[in-house]
Amino acid sequence: MTLIQRALLGPGPSNPYPEATAGLAAPLLGHLDPAFIRILDRTCAGLREVWGTDNALTLPLSGTGSIGMEAAFANTVRAGDTVVVAVNGLFGARMCEVAARYGAQVVRVDHPWGEPVDVERVLAAHPAPAIVAAVHAETSTGVRSDIAALGAALRARSSDTLLLADCVTSLGGSEMALDAWGVDIAYAGTQKCLGVAPGLAPFSFSERAWQRRVEVPPVWYLDLGLLGAYVRGGPGGRAYHHTAPVAMVASLDAALTRITSEGLPLVAERHRAAGLRLQEGLTDLGLELFAAEGHRLPQLTTVRVPADADSAKVRERLLAEYGIEIGAGAGEYASTVWRIGLMGDNARLDRAELVLAALARVLGR
Amino acid sequence: MTLIQRALLGPGPSNPYPEATAGLAAPLLGHLDPAFIRILDRTCAGLREVWGTDNALTLPLSGTGSIGMEAAFANTVRAGDTVVVAVNGLFGARMCEVAARYGAQVVRVDHPWGEPVDVERVLAAHPAPAIVAAVHAETSTGVRSDIAALGAALRARSSDTLLLADCVTSLGGSEMALDAWGVDIAYAGTQKCLGVAPGLAPFSFSERAWQRRVEVPPVWYLDLGLLGAYVRGGPGGRAYHHTAPVAMVASLDAALTRITSEGLPLVAERHRAAGLRLQEGLTDLGLELFAAEGHRLPQLTTVRVPADADSAKVRERLLAEYGIEIGAGAGEYASTVWRIGLMGDNARLDRAELVLAALARVLGR
Repeated sequence: MTLIQRALLGPGPSNPYPEATAGLAAPLLGHLDPAFIRILDRTCAGLREVWGTDNALTLPLSGTGSIGMEAAFANTVRAGDTVVVAVNGLFGARMCEVAARYGAQVVRVDHPWGEPVDVERVLAAHPAPAIVAAVHAETSTGVRSDIAALGAALRARSSDTLLLADCVTSLGGSEMALDAWGVDIAYAGTQKCLGVAPGLAPFSFSERAWQRRVEVPPVWYLDLGLLGAYVRGGPGGRAYHHTAPVAMVASLDAALTRITSEGLPLVAERHRAAGLRLQEGLTDLGLELFAAEGHRLPQLTTVRVPADADSAKVRERLLAEYGIEIGAGAGEYASTVWRIGLMGDNARLDRAELVLAALARVLGR
Repeated sequence: MTLIQRALLGPGPSNPYPEATAGLAAPLLGHLDPAFIRILDRTCAGLREVWGTDNALTLPLSGTGSIGMEAAFANTVRAGDTVVVAVNGLFGARMCEVAARYGAQVVRVDHPWGEPVDVERVLAAHPAPAIVAAVHAETSTGVRSDIAALGAALRARSSDTLLLADCVTSLGGSEMALDAWGVDIAYAGTQKCLGVAPGLAPFSFSERAWQRRVEVPPVWYLDLGLLGAYVRGGPGGRAYHHTAPVAMVASLDAALTRITSEGLPLVAERHRAAGLRLQEGLTDLGLELFAAEGHRLPQLTTVRVPADADSAKVRERLLAEYGIEIGAGAGEYASTVWRIGLMGDNARLDRAELVLAALARVLGR
């Protein structure tokens, strides 16, 4: 086996925290072993802490981040339900497609890519939808939207709309407060700011969402009633549903322990400082940032490919000569934007300087 | 982090091959990195080899074994389709539930638990179902059914019924020949005889099944059209669908390389010899095997709990005093049967002797 070392500075996966790698390779436990159940319980508690929620039903789903989106809609959409989706990038667009597969009447509120979600426009789209969905940190554009403002506006309208937030690129990098923000349904991935390999989708579901869930969702694997009976247990103990991905859970547990030990404000500050330095450095190189000023994610920076550079060739040279992976753009920006992530263990000044130096060399600047 | 070492001799997960653990902890690659694409391609080729198939659409799905069952029905069942399910244990029963969620008219053919599937009864259940589904190796009972005979009988009837086989506990432990047997849809898990942590569902889909697939399945995450565009690629290269669980795939690749290097007949013989010794030793201890003679899986042995023993207490003592996990029974046999697995790296004579010796001590025999 030839091992290849990469600095994973694209939109994810990021290089895992060393603690996460150790957790992944630790001796395997059975999925019903009391020692594993303790790890699972601690993982769910850690997810509550980083998400800022008391939701009892907070757990890692057994799939990659996208399965969180699937579970969100599978457990809440009844055919004909109106779902308003704020679209300001690829993942908002994907939410429209997934919701539609469950029979939702999707009301799509399109925004220019690179701009944050406009709360007033989302509210004006429908007076009383079953669900309003938005992406907190758009992985395709590097933009942060104000989920707290969206939640506050929805509450002020006193409808019983559920608020769904995609937190794939924010969880573990940005400070969050699901309960204070009024988010009912949230999902994330492990391979971004949580600093774990891809393979789990952290998921959180409020009591309000639980009361209005689809009792027999079309997807057995993602049936929250059955999943809850294993994760939360009941009078008869833990009911077997499916074999939990024990190594991945142990890895997430180790990363969450690392993150909460470091302290959530310090972790967020580390992401902020690294991203700020990167964005400043890119500007100093004469490059133009893509995301709207004031709404830029520090953990994921988007920058326009300069006119004299070939996007793919630059990425290939970074990979071949420096072992650095950065990402292409998404959708229509595939060859005109780069995405550079400083997430999880990579949210460090040395990583920022590394990618700036390599990019300067390859671009000849 | 306190590390706990277990001999995982229940129905799964089993202890991974050392190669699989090394693959899991190897430096992480991006999911679009050419170096990872090579690993993914080799993994798909390795799955074809252990499964005995040329199916182009053979891939590891991004979830645990149960997601294979979900994908099988999500991509093939149209509302009202007749699906005949042979039920001789828990996983046959689960197939009925999953198929029904996709709108199938399920014709359930029940067998006594512990007995293999009766081909004649399954054929007699319906003259021309869309799908016939059966479990090759029932994890709940330790019984092997003759999928080759089922496939031959279906072909002899010259209907265009698709044959679906659950191979969760057989793949990597039993010699298999999907194509020769006439299996159209197959899925497995990594945590049994493949000797990898749980987290992936190997999946294989024949050209015949592809021609008759549901083009827009209800589950976006498991849409084989979209998954195929990433795994197989197309004129425009690999189309991003979701971030592959790269560490788990690298681990499966390492295990498959180990298995195919050892040689499939030798691996099957290792499982056979270890299981035979275990079953002989259990009988020598005066215990009664549960699965019908002639249809016993060597990799997963079921044995009746003797009248003078408390099932849970014995399992607790094995875990606490010897670090050995064995499984309870399933369903109505939860407290009257034990399940002992010698799968993957545990398919060894020393593991058989270990569990026999510990069980003899705890039972005072």
